[in-house]
Amino acid sequence: MRTIELKTATRTSRVHVGEGLGDLSRWLPAGRCVVVTDRDVLALHREDLPACPTLAIAAGEAAKSLATVEELYEALLDLEADRGTFLLGVGGGVVSDIAGFVASTFLRGLSFGFVPTTLLAQVDASVGGKNGVNFQGYKNLIGTINPPQFVLCDLRFLRTLPEAEVANGMAEIVKHALIADAGMFAYLEENAGRALALEPAVIERLVGDSVAIKSAVVAGDEREAGERRKLNFGHTLGHALEKTLGLPHGEAVSVGMVMAGAISVRRGMLSRKGFDRMARLLERLRLPCAAAAPLERVADALRRDKKRAARKLHLVLLAEVGRAVVEEVGLEELEELVAGHPEILRPAAAGGSP
Amino acid sequence: MRTIELKTATRTSRVHVGEGLGDLSRWLPAGRCVVVTDRDVLALHREDLPACPTLAIAAGEAAKSLATVEELYEALLDLEADRGTFLLGVGGGVVSDIAGFVASTFLRGLSFGFVPTTLLAQVDASVGGKNGVNFQGYKNLIGTINPPQFVLCDLRFLRTLPEAEVANGMAEIVKHALIADAGMFAYLEENAGRALALEPAVIERLVGDSVAIKSAVVAGDEREAGERRKLNFGHTLGHALEKTLGLPHGEAVSVGMVMAGAISVRRGMLSRKGFDRMARLLERLRLPCAAAAPLERVADALRRDKKRAARKLHLVLLAEVGRAVVEEVGLEELEELVAGHPEILRPAAAGGSP
Repeated sequence: MRTIELKTATRTSRVHVGEGLGDLSRWLPAGRCVVVTDRDVLALHREDLPACPTLAIAAGEAAKSLATVEELYEALLDLEADRGTFLLGVGGGVVSDIAGFVASTFLRGLSFGFVPTTLLAQVDASVGGKNGVNFQGYKNLIGTINPPQFVLCDLRFLRTLPEAEVANGMAEIVKHALIADAGMFAYLEENAGRALALEPAVIERLVGDSVAIKSAVVAGDEREAGERRKLNFGHTLGHALEKTLGLPHGEAVSVGMVMAGAISVRRGMLSRKGFDRMARLLERLRLPCAAAAPLERVADALRRDKKRAARKLHLVLLAEVGRAVVEEVGLEELEELVAGHPEILRPAAAGGSP
Repeated sequence: MRTIELKTATRTSRVHVGEGLGDLSRWLPAGRCVVVTDRDVLALHREDLPACPTLAIAAGEAAKSLATVEELYEALLDLEADRGTFLLGVGGGVVSDIAGFVASTFLRGLSFGFVPTTLLAQVDASVGGKNGVNFQGYKNLIGTINPPQFVLCDLRFLRTLPEAEVANGMAEIVKHALIADAGMFAYLEENAGRALALEPAVIERLVGDSVAIKSAVVAGDEREAGERRKLNFGHTLGHALEKTLGLPHGEAVSVGMVMAGAISVRRGMLSRKGFDRMARLLERLRLPCAAAAPLERVADALRRDKKRAARKLHLVLLAEVGRAVVEEVGLEELEELVAGHPEILRPAAAGGSP
């Protein structure tokens, strides 16, 4: 077991990697606990959950809405939850985003913790304090930044994950290595097969390294004024591909990273050798390095993303494997860069999305 | 002009007492600003508001709902608000509670400030960082604690206030003196008439002292684990009277303070002389010292309040004029104490509320 501390302005958050759900009671505060989970997790892991009142939301991104939040407020009222009640979110990123937001706003803030059940949630969603819901088609438009008291990463949950879910997490693991840790990247190159097979020792190291990298970045910049933007490596274009093509998050981020890598090479930052190492590792982890995309619709999605994010777009590029740099680019320039790499984004007709 | 600083874990909040709305631009950050106000304030003060897009909600407590919050999210989307947008709440406590919550949750947090237009909002609601809305009949069930960047108290707004609104603020001013500042209490005794007439020099001193007292209490205990509870002096019973009798907040708090004072005398803490000084000052400020109340319904309201607040009820009592003490009491004991002071709460038949 490895514990990573994340100190922010308001709290010290602790992530326990490799701890079993059976030892949850070591971390739960005395007093009342309510579990928030989703119906899929409940069906798979009902016996493993602690013996507390359990609120199960629908599984999937569509549940990430204010309507679900209101349902949970009502359920907490029915349970006569008070300020001493502890909320435990058990599930993937949707569950932790909603449970974190409900905990941050019910009675102006309950204490809460997470047990992430997907690789993506363990290495990304449950760390860093961002929570919230979608609104009017905008992802995470409503939310707060408020880290949980603890996160317990039980690696045994990962055994029941479908392959696409493993890929989602793996893309973020590669991202963490690429932006901040050349040693971790080399470890991934040496152990790609064992990582894909979810070998416990390898996965514990990779999840722990990922959490440590994200925690260090967040600790220095909780509200994303600078350093935290590096965590968006591959995500600007990735989000546009996710929206336009309906690509799974991991695949979209993988193509987004390759694109950002290619732009880094073109700007004379990343070496060709570094780019090739990245592409080869992604392939070995069964992540895509290219996609067929209707470029006009991708450009539309980028514009929409920009409108809500800020007046200027910050693109994360690589100076080398293990070191990211944030650069400001205009939207037009980004569109040109995207269109100028047909080996990565192959032009496709609009309407060709799955 | 007097500026009071409130330092919390996340921010330094500044309250400028006696500053004019015309000098708002000194405090607004560069960049885009959106005003949130209500229709009554807009009708009275339209010309005084800064030249920004202005969103006006309905006036009154009924507007303090998640429905209003969603309307504001949508309006901000229509205005293409981004993370650099500053939200300025101009109005009474309902406006600052809603504007503060919207600012704390839209895009995971915009910067914001308040221009309180009522005496109550200047001395209480706009200071301390609590925001939020009512839910399912529970006051302030949903919200966060997040102080504004600045509060600008322009005392000229107070001239257009109805008498009941002045009383609401005056009750909180007396409360602040009673719990923390014997000198301020003596000043109030000497200047009760001039305070009621809203003489600028007297009001500026009283608003400034109130803000300073509340800020000092909040700085030491933002999340109400101990010291901050003292601000609830007169409010436990006051809220019950507000709900049961529909009494205005100021009158309800006034009777609540007299009751808490009487309990303090009975417990051998507050002197009879101190109690009489309090009652006499309230009378001179035209605040009530007694009410006719259906005791059974008041007891019901106390129980309901307790259920959501915490397992134990903390009652704020006076050790002397200018010094409050928090004591734990059981609900039954509190009910006995309430019933045992017929000179303050005269038994009345249920259904006799206005």
